[in-house]
Amino acid sequence: MDERAALTLLAEELEAVGDDAAIVDDLVVTTDMLHERTDFPPGTSRYTAGWRAVGASLSDVAAMGAEATAAVAAYAAPEFDPDELLAFVRGARDVCELVGARYVGGDLDGHQEFTVTTTAIGHTDDPVLRSGASPGDVVCVTGNLGRSAAALELFQRAERATPDRTEKPDADIRERANDLFRFEPRVDAGLALASHATAMMDSSDGLSRSLHQLGEASGCGFAIEADRVPIADALAAIGDGDERTGDTLERALTFGEDFELVVTLPEDALESARAACPVPLTRVGQVVDREEGVTIDGDLLPDRGFTHGDP
Amino acid sequence: MDERAALTLLAEELEAVGDDAAIVDDLVVTTDMLHERTDFPPGTSRYTAGWRAVGASLSDVAAMGAEATAAVAAYAAPEFDPDELLAFVRGARDVCELVGARYVGGDLDGHQEFTVTTTAIGHTDDPVLRSGASPGDVVCVTGNLGRSAAALELFQRAERATPDRTEKPDADIRERANDLFRFEPRVDAGLALASHATAMMDSSDGLSRSLHQLGEASGCGFAIEADRVPIADALAAIGDGDERTGDTLERALTFGEDFELVVTLPEDALESARAACPVPLTRVGQVVDREEGVTIDGDLLPDRGFTHGDP
Repeated sequence: MDERAALTLLAEELEAVGDDAAIVDDLVVTTDMLHERTDFPPGTSRYTAGWRAVGASLSDVAAMGAEATAAVAAYAAPEFDPDELLAFVRGARDVCELVGARYVGGDLDGHQEFTVTTTAIGHTDDPVLRSGASPGDVVCVTGNLGRSAAALELFQRAERATPDRTEKPDADIRERANDLFRFEPRVDAGLALASHATAMMDSSDGLSRSLHQLGEASGCGFAIEADRVPIADALAAIGDGDERTGDTLERALTFGEDFELVVTLPEDALESARAACPVPLTRVGQVVDREEGVTIDGDLLPDRGFTHGDP
Repeated sequence: MDERAALTLLAEELEAVGDDAAIVDDLVVTTDMLHERTDFPPGTSRYTAGWRAVGASLSDVAAMGAEATAAVAAYAAPEFDPDELLAFVRGARDVCELVGARYVGGDLDGHQEFTVTTTAIGHTDDPVLRSGASPGDVVCVTGNLGRSAAALELFQRAERATPDRTEKPDADIRERANDLFRFEPRVDAGLALASHATAMMDSSDGLSRSLHQLGEASGCGFAIEADRVPIADALAAIGDGDERTGDTLERALTFGEDFELVVTLPEDALESARAACPVPLTRVGQVVDREEGVTIDGDLLPDRGFTHGDP
């Protein structure tokens, strides 16, 4: 049974499963487990790992349109290197501070593989679900897509060049990759969009999969326009120089792990949402009837993307 | 660097580290990672694993004197067996229901080793810390000690007898071990004791270590009386028939993983605390000056116990 089938099974068992975070009274709660083999490519610093792991949970809080209150992390590794541990904690704390949350520690555990589980808690009286999109709404994304895809490419290039991770200029490539890997969770944007949004989630599994998930929850389809999809300069730059090759677009749509918000809202709310949103908000298409499916420039956009934790 | 040294390092870095749960406004938050090799002996059912993992976090909430609000779990395994996954979730949900909390799902992850991270959230306007004990207070424990030590012994006996886990009567032994392994988190007791307690924590590292930790946080010592220590019948029963051999007492003091509450309170509050507490509350000794250390019948009680996650 793969992860998605297992999630479906759990959705039948637990009413709270299915949105980016669970809702308990006026709290939202979300937890994520990440581990070295699948989530932290060679060259990822522990500072970046702490930032990114905690950031992933904060992104789920953001996707509910909630304030981010606090985060904890359970840190497991074969050994506890003080420098690595402190770097991790500082990354975790810094990403919390960036979005107004408190990092309040967690647990330590001995484990064969570096493994981190982060939990974030947020507060909202009126969470934005995945289920409220209606045909006629517009669909937008915050920021741009492809930073993580670009980072992974740079990590891989650096690793191929100098596996011992010391030599310049590959240390510089790794630093750039780490920079790209540390994203800003869109908590402020989520709060600004909450009152306008009809549905929202984060793009952690990629835009394509996110649209399919929103479509399933809301009972709608989406018509996306390819040239509106905002692609990160970093991803365009690692291509062949042509900024929008099909491959670049494909990666921006399906690689995921960008932790931007995918949001639907009534067309007449778009301008005020844009004015309120602290980061660029790009209209990438329209909400359409369920039967029309999810399309890009009229072609079906397959439900492909990053499935977290697939071995 | 071992786990305790790493925790000390983190306590210097993060103000929130050091109690059973972190405090954020009127919330308490705690997270724990458990894994097969160190925390779930062969024969532990997934139902018991779900109960116990989530229960461990709920116990930390109880130790703060807080209501238990909600819990989540990240579940990682080499493969997602539907029966195992559902059993885990039902165990997690049942232990939450027992203490009035909601189990609201979590995350799934592929991992070589069965690994679970649980997070629980509680609510209190007046958390009980480890730091408030004063000489003259009495020190008490809820329930009794040694259930988990007895369970482990039974799991090991069953495993030695029939490693394939099918044959009677060893299936019965395993069932008894699983029953003992599923403890009731002392949330109701914690709430009842909160207004009387000067300090509180849970006994997850064993009574000896808990006393040393309380003593360090409160700047005090403890004088324990051996024959007052409440020992679980199940532990006494697996001994040589003599109910209180030295070995039985030693296991009850140091094995840990019992998730009872260790609480200090003024002597004149003892009777009303007992009346309010829904489970037996046993006075095991007295809070004394720091210089007197932690003693049992006048002998120093070493700071030994279960260090979670030690490889």
